[in-house]
Amino acid sequence: MNSPGKYITFCLILAKYYTARGTIDMQMLENLEKFTRLKRDVAQINVDPLQRGGILTPEARAALVEWGDGYSICDFCAGMLDHIRNPPVEEFVHSILPEFLDIDEVRVTHGAREGKFAAMHSLCQKGDFVVMDGNAHYTSVLAAERAGLNVEYVPSSKEPDYAISSEGYALAIERAYEKKGNVTLALLTYPDGNYGNLADARAIADVCHDYGVPLLLNGAYSVGRMPVKARELGADIIVGSGHKSMAACGPVGVLGASEEYARIIFKPSATKKNKEVELLGCTVRGAPLITLMASFPTVVERVGRWPEELENARWFSSEMEKMDLVQVGDRPHNHDLMFFLTERLYDISQTAKGGRYFLYREMKDRGVCGIKPGLTRQFKLSTYGLGRPELEVVLNALSEIIESHEKDEKGDKNEKGANGS
Amino acid sequence: MNSPGKYITFCLILAKYYTARGTIDMQMLENLEKFTRLKRDVAQINVDPLQRGGILTPEARAALVEWGDGYSICDFCAGMLDHIRNPPVEEFVHSILPEFLDIDEVRVTHGAREGKFAAMHSLCQKGDFVVMDGNAHYTSVLAAERAGLNVEYVPSSKEPDYAISSEGYALAIERAYEKKGNVTLALLTYPDGNYGNLADARAIADVCHDYGVPLLLNGAYSVGRMPVKARELGADIIVGSGHKSMAACGPVGVLGASEEYARIIFKPSATKKNKEVELLGCTVRGAPLITLMASFPTVVERVGRWPEELENARWFSSEMEKMDLVQVGDRPHNHDLMFFLTERLYDISQTAKGGRYFLYREMKDRGVCGIKPGLTRQFKLSTYGLGRPELEVVLNALSEIIESHEKDEKGDKNEKGANGS
Repeated sequence: MNSPGKYITFCLILAKYYTARGTIDMQMLENLEKFTRLKRDVAQINVDPLQRGGILTPEARAALVEWGDGYSICDFCAGMLDHIRNPPVEEFVHSILPEFLDIDEVRVTHGAREGKFAAMHSLCQKGDFVVMDGNAHYTSVLAAERAGLNVEYVPSSKEPDYAISSEGYALAIERAYEKKGNVTLALLTYPDGNYGNLADARAIADVCHDYGVPLLLNGAYSVGRMPVKARELGADIIVGSGHKSMAACGPVGVLGASEEYARIIFKPSATKKNKEVELLGCTVRGAPLITLMASFPTVVERVGRWPEELENARWFSSEMEKMDLVQVGDRPHNHDLMFFLTERLYDISQTAKGGRYFLYREMKDRGVCGIKPGLTRQFKLSTYGLGRPELEVVLNALSEIIESHEKDEKGDKNEKGANGS
Repeated sequence: MNSPGKYITFCLILAKYYTARGTIDMQMLENLEKFTRLKRDVAQINVDPLQRGGILTPEARAALVEWGDGYSICDFCAGMLDHIRNPPVEEFVHSILPEFLDIDEVRVTHGAREGKFAAMHSLCQKGDFVVMDGNAHYTSVLAAERAGLNVEYVPSSKEPDYAISSEGYALAIERAYEKKGNVTLALLTYPDGNYGNLADARAIADVCHDYGVPLLLNGAYSVGRMPVKARELGADIIVGSGHKSMAACGPVGVLGASEEYARIIFKPSATKKNKEVELLGCTVRGAPLITLMASFPTVVERVGRWPEELENARWFSSEMEKMDLVQVGDRPHNHDLMFFLTERLYDISQTAKGGRYFLYREMKDRGVCGIKPGLTRQFKLSTYGLGRPELEVVLNALSEIIESHEKDEKGDKNEKGANGS
């Protein structure tokens, strides 16, 4: 497709095949070249919480090239993805991951949401109730909706803490009972994806267990970032996200369950004995799984460095507050994902060139992206994996932007004042 | 992790974090290094039908490196994966793919099986019947089982043709009716993954439509290899596989539907208005989607070269038959995936060193892999994308192996005969 001659031949061949809609297809084909050389347009420092934990290690990047082809990991499959020995998927899935998550059984999934759906779809009956925290990710709600379940929320304590309590779970279960509901699952987002709050999972698990309800821990923002041991936290089921927090190429995730629930979630097919129904036989049949494996030693290492990450996050939060950018959620904060109320930036946006997009543009000019374009009054970001020097770049960018605009504003006012007097 | 000093520090940090199970974790960690530098151990020519259509283009391989990080395609997402404009996912999903598949609506999925499940789960009620060809891939059966559906099979004509007829669909639907079944979907595997048979999809669609049953075409082995136009074939729903046949990194696939069914399959959530329930909001949120896009111009081009591929496949089949390796299924064959009865190789395996694994080993010594290790009496392979010179390597390897063993065998017999006389 690189030489014009080849391109013309290719167009001619196609014209032959699409005679009926010839002109349309020729147009379609002329548009395709742009898909071949797409470049990612991001700044050097990306503080989007979605992106911070998914940056590949050099080993994972090399693995992508080595294992990129379609079904590459299936060359030596004897029928079950999780039992492939070459590459060593079996050891990774059946020894390493259960140890890492501290749970009986683990499988690889397409991501946290697919793991949640698999658990809900297999453990609950249509019409049942699932109880979940009011801070839950939208995919938990969608997974429940797809499985035909009713959702009873545990409301958060609202601004500024947005805290989720174990008592809230008891009350939500009771409310579902009042509706004659059958509560077959509880879910806790750990931490939630808005405020980065880490609720007391152990206390919540205890409450759920008192009602005989298993607890699913959504660890999309924790597994691979910080130590998470399902057994210690009382979680019966746990999901993690490779692309969100395990330095893997998406889509890939993990789904763990204690023996009691694993038996149901990973039930083999009635007719295809070595295929698990909820996984449709196998899930990640390609390179993303190898990136999960290739990054894993680094992931284990960084989980060990969590106190350092936490210290950076808290320091960043305190520096933000010096600029009157106020962190909400847990205080002191226990996670790298933080939500800030930034009224000062909103005020600037009222007169700034580009309106509410000024912040995105001006941050990007300073090498920082990841705050959603258009947001100025409040936003979330993550400090994960960024050292102090990089966090200083972010802080200085914000400080410079604020100062330059407020100086202009002051200047304008003084000018107006001078003119008016 | 490269210098010993760093490795020791890393172990010490970890030891601190896993004091309770210190020794176990230290062992676990020592084992992790091997996951970082995994190499794919395949021969130069891989005739596994699973692998032939999924080999990346150079553009797709470059895209993997550029877009490898976790959620890379989501930097500029405004809430819906299929409407992302940078990279141009929206144009690809909403203009290019519907044109390519000739169907109203298309979405990206994790693969063909996930597309089949999404269609079954949304279009059928638990307990309904799905009618499918007896040659169906196991994942169609699993998708039905996961969706709680009963399967009524359309049996094939058995050896040597394994043909699926449109009359068979009428009979299967009638049988389901006799069981008081509600038939809400029919599925045709086009071609099937064992024999590479292409049934008369149009005739089957007509029969199904006479009964008011929509037809789902499983094009995992056709979409991206050969021209497939859903509307022409009468398919109401179509699935394709990026890793199997569209030169993409797995897992990724496409799911198309005519407007009538798209409305149901891609229904938005009741509470999260811009999220589609069956897709759990979004599916392939990572590099595999970009590889699908990067390879697409080449895929369109190769689909245009299908007659050449077919000619190669038929020539290969005729050369195989000169060695008494008999092709079953459609004759003349209409697809690159072919199934051979190879009694002659089975006979050799009875005395060969390594028993039934001799073939795999000896083919690999000659630069060819992809025939399942241990198979000798019958196997499938694909000629897709292999030119005559490469196909000659495969044929010569088989011929050499047969000749060398049969010569030995003959020599042994002669020797025994000479000794005995």
